[in-house]
Amino acid sequence: MVRDVSDAGGTNGSRRAVVLLSGGLDSATALAVARRDGFESHTLSFQYGQRHAVELKAARRVASALGAASHLVVPVALDVFGGSALTSDDIAVPKDSTSTGIPVTYVPARNTVFLSLALAYAEVLDAWDIFIGVNVLDYSGYPDCRPDYIAAFEKMAAFATKAAVEGRGRLRVQTPLIRMTKAEIITLGASLGVDYALTVSCYDPGADGTACGRCDACAIRARGFAEAGVRDPARSRTPSRA
Amino acid sequence: MVRDVSDAGGTNGSRRAVVLLSGGLDSATALAVARRDGFESHTLSFQYGQRHAVELKAARRVASALGAASHLVVPVALDVFGGSALTSDDIAVPKDSTSTGIPVTYVPARNTVFLSLALAYAEVLDAWDIFIGVNVLDYSGYPDCRPDYIAAFEKMAAFATKAAVEGRGRLRVQTPLIRMTKAEIITLGASLGVDYALTVSCYDPGADGTACGRCDACAIRARGFAEAGVRDPARSRTPSRA
Repeated sequence: MVRDVSDAGGTNGSRRAVVLLSGGLDSATALAVARRDGFESHTLSFQYGQRHAVELKAARRVASALGAASHLVVPVALDVFGGSALTSDDIAVPKDSTSTGIPVTYVPARNTVFLSLALAYAEVLDAWDIFIGVNVLDYSGYPDCRPDYIAAFEKMAAFATKAAVEGRGRLRVQTPLIRMTKAEIITLGASLGVDYALTVSCYDPGADGTACGRCDACAIRARGFAEAGVRDPARSRTPSRA
Repeated sequence: MVRDVSDAGGTNGSRRAVVLLSGGLDSATALAVARRDGFESHTLSFQYGQRHAVELKAARRVASALGAASHLVVPVALDVFGGSALTSDDIAVPKDSTSTGIPVTYVPARNTVFLSLALAYAEVLDAWDIFIGVNVLDYSGYPDCRPDYIAAFEKMAAFATKAAVEGRGRLRVQTPLIRMTKAEIITLGASLGVDYALTVSCYDPGADGTACGRCDACAIRARGFAEAGVRDPARSRTPSRA
């Protein structure tokens, strides 16, 4: 449950934001940006039947380290639908992949479900900003990480809530990383004090949080750190292939 | 889990639809319309922390009685956000209300969350139609029951999924009841063989499914049956005030 939230507006005059936090490096950086921009940041994570539930522990650590005002985990059972390697035991996470197009790790309509839940939370908090760490360059082909999708979601939100139709505000979905490379994200986060040792990017991590070093997410992460000229402080079971 | 669903398209050449089913009379009627229109209908209900969980039993009975191809219940913990009389013990369901405007039974962004989950399910099923029993006349002031909201959701969905961006189809949110009065809905459903004894409309029903007879939902239902000239076969604890 939410703690230390007053009834209206942020404390000390700051604005409130809902920040989607996965435990990965992108959303950790998005939270750091929200904090830099002065938002009282209420982080939101989802227990959606993901294989990599270890990311939820990472999200909690990141929220604490970066000064989130509150952290909430919402259970939503996306795994009952099946259809993704990230939520179904019947579909393997690809390793050492060279395939193109939208991968099997795509979870149907995941960002729409997550942003919708963030919208509900924002209305309860009287927040008008949602931060999400999507980006189009290293996005592994997911459709719901693109600017036109984000703009369409914002337009829909203007009709969706009591607060919006009563004219009390207009929701903004803030995507500070959307056109950045992974290296640029890492450079930005490092400058804002993000401790990437706390984050987990791997699609198939060990129970102790170590990365496999071989899935798409590990490969993209490794390449990003290499290009940024920064050593990745997180642990990996095998040397990554950047 | 889904049963008896083949890999692509509906069985016997019929199209597939996801039908949101609450256990109330509107969604039961929407399912009857989907069946009338030839859709292989996959019903979807949500366990979202509602006070009136007895509606989930009603939804299952309705799905079975109206020939749904499958029925799925997805847990999504909207109650962690608070903010509604329907999910929070701290806010009482109003009885014998004469208030206007958006009521405290409004659940923040509920239809957006539900339609987003239906969108995920539709993508997995390769379905392009979602039926939802919203209507603007007897809607008790909920913003996410209006035609402009539904249109905005459809536009967003065109950018949201792998199937949509690959050009395999365009999602339609079908709202066959949106401009009907409750009496018209009841007349339509009765003509399509809906057994309204199976449905629960009450915001605050007893554990045995009996309606309170005094909340907004009971009042709207009673007025609808009276205007349709049909006897309500469902049980109520107190005579309703139609």
